[in-house]
Amino acid sequence: MRHLLSAAELSHADAVRILDTAEAMAATQGRTIKKLPTLRGRTVVNLFFEDSTRTRISFEAAAKRLSADVINFSAKGSSVSKGESLKDTALTLQAMGIDGVVIRHHDSGAPHRLAHSGWIDVPVLNAGDGTHQHPTQALLDAFTMRRHLHGRGSAHRDASAGAPPAPEGTDLTGSSVVIVGDVLHSRVARSNVELLHTLGARVTLVAPPTLLPVGIGAWPCAVGYDLDAALAEARPDAVMMLRVQRERMSSTGGGFFPSPLEYHRRYGLDGARLRVLPDDAIVMHPGPMNRGLEISAEAADSARSTIVEQVANGVSVRMAVLYLLLAGGETTTGGIS
Amino acid sequence: MRHLLSAAELSHADAVRILDTAEAMAATQGRTIKKLPTLRGRTVVNLFFEDSTRTRISFEAAAKRLSADVINFSAKGSSVSKGESLKDTALTLQAMGIDGVVIRHHDSGAPHRLAHSGWIDVPVLNAGDGTHQHPTQALLDAFTMRRHLHGRGSAHRDASAGAPPAPEGTDLTGSSVVIVGDVLHSRVARSNVELLHTLGARVTLVAPPTLLPVGIGAWPCAVGYDLDAALAEARPDAVMMLRVQRERMSSTGGGFFPSPLEYHRRYGLDGARLRVLPDDAIVMHPGPMNRGLEISAEAADSARSTIVEQVANGVSVRMAVLYLLLAGGETTTGGIS
Amino acid sequence: MRHLLSAAELSHADAVRILDTAEAMAATQGRTIKKLPTLRGRTVVNLFFEDSTRTRISFEAAAKRLSADVINFSAKGSSVSKGESLKDTALTLQAMGIDGVVIRHHDSGAPHRLAHSGWIDVPVLNAGDGTHQHPTQALLDAFTMRRHLHGRGSAHRDASAGAPPAPEGTDLTGSSVVIVGDVLHSRVARSNVELLHTLGARVTLVAPPTLLPVGIGAWPCAVGYDLDAALAEARPDAVMMLRVQRERMSSTGGGFFPSPLEYHRRYGLDGARLRVLPDDAIVMHPGPMNRGLEISAEAADSARSTIVEQVANGVSVRMAVLYLLLAGGETTTGGIS
Repeated sequence: MRHLLSAAELSHADAVRILDTAEAMAATQGRTIKKLPTLRGRTVVNLFFEDSTRTRISFEAAAKRLSADVINFSAKGSSVSKGESLKDTALTLQAMGIDGVVIRHHDSGAPHRLAHSGWIDVPVLNAGDGTHQHPTQALLDAFTMRRHLHGRGSAHRDASAGAPPAPEGTDLTGSSVVIVGDVLHSRVARSNVELLHTLGARVTLVAPPTLLPVGIGAWPCAVGYDLDAALAEARPDAVMMLRVQRERMSSTGGGFFPSPLEYHRRYGLDGARLRVLPDDAIVMHPGPMNRGLEISAEAADSARSTIVEQVANGVSVRMAVLYLLLAGGETTTGGIS
Repeated sequence: MRHLLSAAELSHADAVRILDTAEAMAATQGRTIKKLPTLRGRTVVNLFFEDSTRTRISFEAAAKRLSADVINFSAKGSSVSKGESLKDTALTLQAMGIDGVVIRHHDSGAPHRLAHSGWIDVPVLNAGDGTHQHPTQALLDAFTMRRHLHGRGSAHRDASAGAPPAPEGTDLTGSSVVIVGDVLHSRVARSNVELLHTLGARVTLVAPPTLLPVGIGAWPCAVGYDLDAALAEARPDAVMMLRVQRERMSSTGGGFFPSPLEYHRRYGLDGARLRVLPDDAIVMHPGPMNRGLEISAEAADSARSTIVEQVANGVSVRMAVLYLLLAGGETTTGGIS
Repeated sequence: MRHLLSAAELSHADAVRILDTAEAMAATQGRTIKKLPTLRGRTVVNLFFEDSTRTRISFEAAAKRLSADVINFSAKGSSVSKGESLKDTALTLQAMGIDGVVIRHHDSGAPHRLAHSGWIDVPVLNAGDGTHQHPTQALLDAFTMRRHLHGRGSAHRDASAGAPPAPEGTDLTGSSVVIVGDVLHSRVARSNVELLHTLGARVTLVAPPTLLPVGIGAWPCAVGYDLDAALAEARPDAVMMLRVQRERMSSTGGGFFPSPLEYHRRYGLDGARLRVLPDDAIVMHPGPMNRGLEISAEAADSARSTIVEQVANGVSVRMAVLYLLLAGGETTTGGIS
């Protein structure tokens, strides 16, 4: 297999190799000339069936820094946004000699279908599918946590300044992560729980019962409904606040949502909760934030917040994945699923 | 003249030269690094007044593989989509030092106006105008037929695996092509008939009388209404199924259309018709297909089908045309109209 | 400061340095290969909150000719088009390691906010904000005037053929410019008055009283209501016709507008007015024109018209600004505000 479809499919060795490669990429990003010649002459298509300017730009910047050509393909309004068209689109891109496809799709499973249908034999990178997976988000979060976990002994204390590189080969064994909020609609939560588990972290999910998916009992993590109790018990190294996706609630009718005020009082990260966190704990959010809802401005802008650092790490992680999947043959891409 | 506006304007020598150049381009496309330095420093604008993701991506990939810079210009919603604006757009692009314009326009004749108005003195490539012309589609179809016609003697039998390169300088003399379906709305049919005639092929059009344009009698081809009779008589080397453009029928009121079932029964390429074709005959379609309407899944996915190969050849042919029109001066671009 | 936000912020030395650099850029644009390696490896984001195909393409062509990578970010429909999002967008781009931002925004002041908020520490280039500023337009207009002013002694008389390069270090001292029309809605007028004043030109604005902004008395220029009187008195070297922005009038209710016929009779540049201009005077327009409203076809297409030349100069000026702001460190970018 030569794709990145799901955090669940990543072995421990694969995940650590991606994080190590991302550190090598990050080391080049402080230079004035950030561009590497690695993927010169390769063409990456950003196949976006769902708008996401942020993720598209992050992948586009990553590919261009590796000297790849990038073709943007927004499916909105095009004939490919309908019916059985994913197959025809795949066959078309394959025939055009495209070297890799980054796909964002509103349907859970579309990237898997694209990769395993036999329509295409180039690497497929999942940039978010429905409520299912967002593996590069989980990888950039793990990258950020790994840096902070292993940077603790150093003089470094201000999370917003960015943490030093993590030692090669390390994982997240022994760390504790609390993920809070709208788990039901979050591909970020699912991808993170799976990857963090693989990397040896202990994970606690906290959410209102109505915002948890069916089958949550089978996930490799603890589940709680009381944020203050969970923070006290888990003593987290990282607290990850999820974006409340009210737009998905209204459209599906699923996920009863308390009033914003009530939600913030019970599940929001505010100044008081910030102050009970362990000394080195960081505050994470995948963005874009609903300030005042799942996170207060004080927490979002505090020295513990790694929110901006996560965006920077996103480019390094995406460069690493593009490099590992596209630069070599079977030998180089090794165990990445 | 230094443009590619219409298949009708291509001389026999021009057409063969483009096909030979496209073979040279195709020979580079099996490499890992497909990029050639030929158009480094040149800028091509994709000026699309009508959506066509497929064609835009094919031209964009072709230009980038020749190392050109590409600027996409979707006219939708911009001020240039109205009135006399084609002139102002042309003057603007010319003044900006653009080196070539690929234009797609809903109005028949717009590329010709752009090229011959005196507004602009760079090469203009027609990527489809109204119901008029789509010359690169005709060229990629001819390229595909030429390969299969001359590849017959070889061990090669499975069309879907791609045919070997055709010998330099050859044309389609002695071959027979049947084109079937919605000729009325098809710039593909018109362009193909003209180019195939120039290249020495015998062409038979088959369509319901209501889907044939006025003036069809003057086209250089035979015309029939009965598909089975035409296949029996023409003994075709290639059968090209046209896409039924129902969206154009409803909007113009033109082109009475029988029920889909009736259409498929009388004009669709199904398994039974597939089996009466000569041994080496190929099945072509410009895409995207209406499976079950003009072509059955069995025919579309059969070993005779060159549909995916046509897409791949499209990139080679567009690289050839961009190269011939943009890379040299008058001397090099020679007789291309 | 390392931004280009407003024509008012440019010192005389800054402005002349940009014009001199633009001459150096223009000298490379006659070549077949127009591309310079100057910004290789740098990434420029075109952050367009308001459609402007023309300006976007001009900046994109300029950046690509300097070998920069360009990422287009159309805010329409994206989450960033709402509320407090400019901050989040800025932090995101900064974190991604973008090297420069070209911003177009419907709100006056947005580029200033982006540059001086502390959200971002890369150069910000204003590509037009509300009715406030459009500094690269003013610079390309000054560049065009400088060429014609200093080209007068030469054999050159036909403005449409383009003027020869202006001598290094020169400004517009001693020249007279008349700017005519919808000043109220024009960021072009405001930017031009400020820059022309800095460069030593005498400026006269002519407009119906209802199309002049509050506070016009403080602008460094004369103001008149009678075009024929102003032309006779000012003896202009350049007449700049502003685009009547009827779309802004209807949406704001501001700016009472006489009938088009009446407007053209009193404020339009027609053949009769063209003939009373001094021998060497040029006719300018920022485009796109309303032919028959602010300018007649005869004036627009006359040998005095520099309208197409302005578009060409726009690319050179934008190359110069991108080069000065992005290529060096503090030392090189010197006094540009």
